[in-house]
Order: sequence, then structure tokens, then C-alpha cells
Amino acid sequence: MKTIGYACTSADAPLESYSFERRAPLANDVVMEITYAGICHSDIHMAHNDWGFTLYPLVPGHEIVGRVIAIGSDVTKFKVGDHGAVGCMVDSCQHCDQCRRGEEQFCREGNTGTYSVPDRIDGSITKGGYSKHIVVREEFVCTVPEGMDLSRTAPILCAGITTYSPLRTWNVGPHSRVGVIGMGGLGHMAVKLAAAMGARVTMISRSPDKEKVAREIGADDFLISTNAGAMQAAANVFDLIIDTVPVKHDLDAYMPLLDVDGTLVIVGQVGPWGEVNGLPFLMGRRRVAGSPIGGMRETQEVIDFCARKGILPECRIIRPEQVNEAFATLQRADIPFRFVIDMASLSVPEAA
Amino acid sequence: MKTIGYACTSADAPLESYSFERRAPLANDVVMEITYAGICHSDIHMAHNDWGFTLYPLVPGHEIVGRVIAIGSDVTKFKVGDHGAVGCMVDSCQHCDQCRRGEEQFCREGNTGTYSVPDRIDGSITKGGYSKHIVVREEFVCTVPEGMDLSRTAPILCAGITTYSPLRTWNVGPHSRVGVIGMGGLGHMAVKLAAAMGARVTMISRSPDKEKVAREIGADDFLISTNAGAMQAAANVFDLIIDTVPVKHDLDAYMPLLDVDGTLVIVGQVGPWGEVNGLPFLMGRRRVAGSPIGGMRETQEVIDFCARKGILPECRIIRPEQVNEAFATLQRADIPFRFVIDMASLSVPEAA
Repeated sequence: MKTIGYACTSADAPLESYSFERRAPLANDVVMEITYAGICHSDIHMAHNDWGFTLYPLVPGHEIVGRVIAIGSDVTKFKVGDHGAVGCMVDSCQHCDQCRRGEEQFCREGNTGTYSVPDRIDGSITKGGYSKHIVVREEFVCTVPEGMDLSRTAPILCAGITTYSPLRTWNVGPHSRVGVIGMGGLGHMAVKLAAAMGARVTMISRSPDKEKVAREIGADDFLISTNAGAMQAAANVFDLIIDTVPVKHDLDAYMPLLDVDGTLVIVGQVGPWGEVNGLPFLMGRRRVAGSPIGGMRETQEVIDFCARKGILPECRIIRPEQVNEAFATLQRADIPFRFVIDMASLSVPEAA
Repeated sequence: MKTIGYACTSADAPLESYSFERRAPLANDVVMEITYAGICHSDIHMAHNDWGFTLYPLVPGHEIVGRVIAIGSDVTKFKVGDHGAVGCMVDSCQHCDQCRRGEEQFCREGNTGTYSVPDRIDGSITKGGYSKHIVVREEFVCTVPEGMDLSRTAPILCAGITTYSPLRTWNVGPHSRVGVIGMGGLGHMAVKLAAAMGARVTMISRSPDKEKVAREIGADDFLISTNAGAMQAAANVFDLIIDTVPVKHDLDAYMPLLDVDGTLVIVGQVGPWGEVNGLPFLMGRRRVAGSPIGGMRETQEVIDFCARKGILPECRIIRPEQVNEAFATLQRADIPFRFVIDMASLSVPEAA
């Protein structure tokens, strides 16, 4: 099927309107008209080919909500008119041990990313949510509970699940002491989710001016990482730290903040780490882990959790033609909200 | 009380015979005549002041077994003639949460090391097991089960507990898939202990000539870390890797060997890590941890476990005057056994 969207054609090109084909829906496919698409920092990294594996033309976007406008004959979970949501994956092998336990992000054959990888059905390059329509197999479309504010739901599909998954994996609950490093799209969701799970939550940031917002969204404490005295006083106080910093950084300042057996989970940075001193690991049996997104079971779980708890990402709604401006803003600063593109307002460009 | 031992007086001095005073035994103290003392790689690091905090004259040794020759009036666990064992700690606060749960290695006030730190009772510098006698509070002396081969028991107190503790912390049992990097004092104990717990054990080593010994002591598989093809074929196969390499090294080659949610535990190296690529962490929710020795509860547990399972470290018994030679051998190569000093043969030096 024909559709339109925004794409970039090289690492230094801006996003521009773009017409392309989606596959004709198969029996187990859901066709959605996209209403909102969140902007994730990964979209910028991929647009600029920072990780070296971008395939152009690139249509970014893996935080997607929309309205179902057609379904294949075998689809049972959706009917036309329902709202659905798509995250970072659109397919996987569906038969390995990881897929069977709902952890498709660890699919033994590799999952199929929502954009810029070969589709496992027709070999075409997958294209993301900065577009008018998307065609996705039913298993990778989450349901959106009745009454959820659709304009603020999309970022749950990446920023939400990426922080929810480690909070669940490391059993956060009442009495957990959770630190969150970085007050951007991921960080602010980590604060909201951990607080909703009953944890005592501390925002750890370089910027004193983030304290007000941090407390408003649920942080109990605020720790300024450049204040050596405050950092020293905060030794051994966390069971879990969610590290959302998206660029290379040293871990040495943060590890001593963990209590014995505590874990720092890197969710934001891809690539080589900065310096790591081994001593705080030995001295407190401390751990560092990485965690990517989450599986489909857990992605549905976080959407339902947010609906039940009344948690929504902080969002700024923009029009599709403002996307390059939003990219520039995100590159300048970590901001405690998510840009969300109002895709419903996308009109067919003149050239199409 | 007067005693004798071996000490070095500076970072580049050899160990020489040395006369010194132990504290007069207190009501809760046990006095032991040391029969055997193992040589740990840390002894060499400390003798050479590699970590910068050695206090001279240094009497090394934290793998100690001996015969009880006197007890304080409050001692209940020992009587004269019993055999006892002392490891890396001789004291701690005994009232913090960590001490209360038997994890004195994480004492909130800091535990008291067996040598080269201020004694918390009299402020003197603690002196280790390369000596004729030692005076230690009862809580830090383990019992040695009847019939154990004393000449091979001492290394359990450091090499044994240091590898046993992470195997227990990460719940190794039948069906666990355990890799062990490095075939030295710690590595060979890790293989024996993990095998005795029922795990499938792989020795990971640079040296093909270690395969025979590795299999003899319980390894099911042998993986040569310089064989790129073998390493690639071994991706995702371990739940736990015990990394006993005592010097700075890159983790990048080993992380992909871990399965989803697997952990590599560093037990051998102190100091900054080599390069770490974050991608294998994100892609498999893999983890790195550090782990030091173990608490007194677990130290007694590993001694009892070894007695029950008939596990003993591989040892080469040397005379006290051969200690400098043994240090030199250990510095040249990782060897799959422990040097153990026959302290009972220590005679009063001419100068004393």
C-alpha cells in the first residue's frame, strides 16, 4: 500500500517528506493509521548513522500509536476502529526459548527492528512511525486501554518499556531505593514508574535546575552529581540505579552510591564505556548490567500499568514539519519531556 | 607473646626471618600454632606495595591452619588441641547489618584484614600467617572437620572461599553452565567447587597445555580464548563466568560468551578494568560483578563442603626458606596449584 512519511537520505541530510510503499497486509497483519509518533534519541543517532548500520532512506520512529483501519483474516486481537501501539520491534522468530517466554528482544535469530533493518517477510527495509500508515503482524501490536490519552501514550513504547523492564527485572517495589541518572525522556519515565511501584526515588543530575520538575513527577530526593560532598554522603544508599545517560561517561562516580549487591543498569548508552575502577565492584559485590527495551508481554504490561496508575510521559506535541527543529533541540540538551509528532496532521506533500 | 615469622621491610626487599610480638590473648581469643600457610597472589601484590597501602614490616599470609594451643576464658568453640583455620579477616564491628548476616567482608565499619592494617583492639599492625603463632578472636577462627588433610586445607581460606562465594551468590547448581577464566590458584578451585555443585564447567584459558589438568580436576570442556572460531561458537553458553585473571584485561572477548541475563564475576583483579564495549550488555541484559572473599558463615560452609565432597586444593608444600623462590615462580606464571608453606618446620632463626 502507498503511504507517506518523513525520511532522511544520508547522515547529514534533514528529514524531508517521502512517499513509499508498505507491504500489502498479510492474514496476520494489522494496518494502522498512525496518530502519534514519539521522538527517541535513538532516532537521531540512527538518522546520523552514529552506530554505523543505518540503511537510507531512513523513516525513523518506534514509539507509535494509531487507529486500526484494516486487519488480515487471521487477526483476532483487533477490529477496525481499535487503537493499537507499536514499539521497537515488528517481528521475531516466534519459536525460540526467548520468544516463547515473551522476551522477543532477545530472539535467538535476532528480532526485526521497527526501522532500518531487512523485514523478515519480504526483505524490504523496515520503515518506522514518522509516517501515515504502518503494517505490522498482530503479535507486535499492543492494545491501548480505553480512555488513555493517545497524544501521550506513544513514548511508553520505548522510553516507558526501556525503564520499566529493568525495574521489573530487578524486582523494584515498596522499600526499594532507586536512583535515576539523567532527566531526559527515559529518566523522567524511570522516576514516574519507580515511584508508582512504591520505591523511594532519587533523581541524580548535574543540573540543579531540574530539581523542581523531578520532585513534581515523583522523585523523593534530588542528588547533584557534581557536588562531591553530597555524592560522598550518598554512598551505599541505592539498591538499583537506572543510568539513562545517552553518551559515553565514567561509571566511577556512581558505583559507590550502590549498596552491597546493588546494580547499576545502563539503558541509555550504546558503545564503549568510560573508565571503570574495579574496586567498588569487589568491595560491595556491586554489579553493572545493560538492559534494552523489553519483550511484548512486558510492553503490554507497562501500557496497562500506566493506564491503571494514571502515568503518562511528559510530552510536547509538534507538527510533522517541526521534526528537524525537535532533533536540534534534543541534541542540545536533555529535556524532561518527549517530543511527540501529531502524525494525524500529516497531509500529502505537494511532490507526492 | 613472642613469635617468629617471615617479613619484608620494603617493596623491593625479599622476605626474611623476623621476630615480633603478638598481643597477649584476650578472653575471646584463640592462640594457634600455625602448621600451614598458603601463598596467595595478593601476598605478592602486598609485599611489593602494588596497591599502595602496604604497611612495613609486612608479614603476609591469609590462608592459615593451625593447632589451638591456648584459649581465652570466654572461648566456647575450641579447646586446646583442636585444629582451626583463619582466612583474610581477623575482626569486624560485629553489630552492623552485614556482620549480623555473616557477611563481615562488607562490615559497615570495614573489616580488619589479617595483615597490614591497624588492629581494632590495640592499634598495632596486623601480621599474617607466615609465622609460628597467631592470636585471633574466636569468631574469626573456623573449625576444621576431623580427618581433613591439613597440608591442603589452608588455600580454602582464600582461593576456596573467593570462588565458592560467587558460585553460591549466583545460585550455581545442577544444570548451571559455568565458565572459569584462568587456571591458577583461584581458577582451579572454581572448577573443583562448581563441578562438585553439579554444574557443567568449562575452563577458559590461553594455554592449550592446561587442558589435561583442567579435565582431571573436573572441567567438562576446555575453551582456548585465543581461538576466535571456538570463542564465536561458544557465544551465549554460560550462565556464570568466574574471572580469576589477576591483572588488567579486556572484558570484550568474554561477555558474548554469557547467555541472556548471565553474569561475569571478577574475583581476581583489583584496579581499573580494560576496555568495555557496552553492546553485549544491552543486547543480552548481561552483567558484570565483583566479588571479594566471603563472610565467616560462608567460609565455614566452604570448609565443610570441601570436607564432605572430598575436595582439596592442589598444593606444593615448601619450606619457609623457599618462600622468595615461590613468589618468583608465581610472578612468572599462573600455575594450577597453590604453594603452601610448612610453617611447623619453622625453626627459631639464629638472630632471634
